[in-house]
Amino acid sequence: MINGKEELDFFLNDFAALDGLKILVHGGGRKATEIADSMGLKPIMIAGRRVTDQANLEVVTMVYAGLLNKNIVAQLQAKGCNALGLSGADANVIMAHKRIVKDIDYGFAGDIDEVENKTISLFLNAGIAPVFSAITHDKQGQLLNTNADTIAAELAKGLSEDFEVELIYCFEKNGVLKRVEDDTSVIESIDSKSYKEMKNQGIISEGMLPKLENCFDALRNGVERVLIGKPELISNRNSKHTRLIL
Amino acid sequence: MINGKEELDFFLNDFAALDGLKILVHGGGRKATEIADSMGLKPIMIAGRRVTDQANLEVVTMVYAGLLNKNIVAQLQAKGCNALGLSGADANVIMAHKRIVKDIDYGFAGDIDEVENKTISLFLNAGIAPVFSAITHDKQGQLLNTNADTIAAELAKGLSEDFEVELIYCFEKNGVLKRVEDDTSVIESIDSKSYKEMKNQGIISEGMLPKLENCFDALRNGVERVLIGKPELISNRNSKHTRLIL
Repeated sequence: MINGKEELDFFLNDFAALDGLKILVHGGGRKATEIADSMGLKPIMIAGRRVTDQANLEVVTMVYAGLLNKNIVAQLQAKGCNALGLSGADANVIMAHKRIVKDIDYGFAGDIDEVENKTISLFLNAGIAPVFSAITHDKQGQLLNTNADTIAAELAKGLSEDFEVELIYCFEKNGVLKRVEDDTSVIESIDSKSYKEMKNQGIISEGMLPKLENCFDALRNGVERVLIGKPELISNRNSKHTRLIL
Repeated sequence: MINGKEELDFFLNDFAALDGLKILVHGGGRKATEIADSMGLKPIMIAGRRVTDQANLEVVTMVYAGLLNKNIVAQLQAKGCNALGLSGADANVIMAHKRIVKDIDYGFAGDIDEVENKTISLFLNAGIAPVFSAITHDKQGQLLNTNADTIAAELAKGLSEDFEVELIYCFEKNGVLKRVEDDTSVIESIDSKSYKEMKNQGIISEGMLPKLENCFDALRNGVERVLIGKPELISNRNSKHTRLIL
């Protein structure tokens, strides 16, 4: 999560300056809520989770794949990084299916089936930096709202067949924290064993669990290294962060 | 201009079925007006022409490059066409500058400087069909609202260096009409001489003039063939249309 224009600018400077092949994945929930509000749309929540109905799907498609994606791309271009904005539908790079309804119908939420490595590699090898918005499609014409953390993990897994991949999750904290309110209490490394223990003890909180599941899933599927921390982590590896280990 | 879901579906079927390398360019003014309305934004007009202020630039970026572009791309993917949605900022494919203020400040309206043939050819040769929304950038981080007809002409001109290019303008009429209200009065061909005469006689109306200027500009700059007609023209060359000749 990046707050405000200045922080985004710092981050995009760092991203543009990164050596090697690179991919950026972003969401944009807060801006989508703001735009939905201005259109008089109410967020639909079931059991504390957001449901994507048709109207809200249109909003996230506009905001993620349009407004935010194109502004990020234009800013990266200005910084000398040859960015290319993508949704999963573009060149069919990420296929998904509408989440199967069990207890709750999440509406047009997508669960990823496949990442098109070959096309993404074509872009990367042409010196292009793909910038993914959190929208995928089902190859039947339906766009789907898809979790950005999961997109990042699936891309990392897919591309680890052809590249040595490092996956960095950036958010507003220094990493996974022992005490949620204390940003100095960063856990420097977490392995599957300590993860299980901290989960059982309730040290790792609910919102962090799916992110960490994605991390371990990525590590088990060929991704070299997974780090979690503040956006500055991408340019400064000495900044505090959590490293995940199998 | 394509009206409604069904007509768009017909057109995308035809486009998906086209042989050879192909590019689609679209605007979306009506949907943008609808979304702007729902957000309580008023269109800004000076001397009968639309002005793009910051708020309206955000709307067209959302609607053209997000909502419409991604839905068109997802539908083409469903029809077996490997579409890739683009703004001019993506992979830096179209560079423009903010229109110079003479009498009227059109705000964030873009006039095109350059089309990046090499990157567009890379996509085309990889079996990808680029789908351009009417948004460009200035390579300094600024997105710009840009006329879709002009984008089409500039792409056609640029690509005619490497390919034999045919440019087809689709709109709600059968072609350029002798009498605006009579859709059977299609002028089958127009050359620069007859264009000048009809312009002087006031037969060709104001809205059609910039379109035709684009057409002749394309023909003078290497484009093989320029046609104007209804969307069905792309699959049925026997349907009525106007052909432009130098």
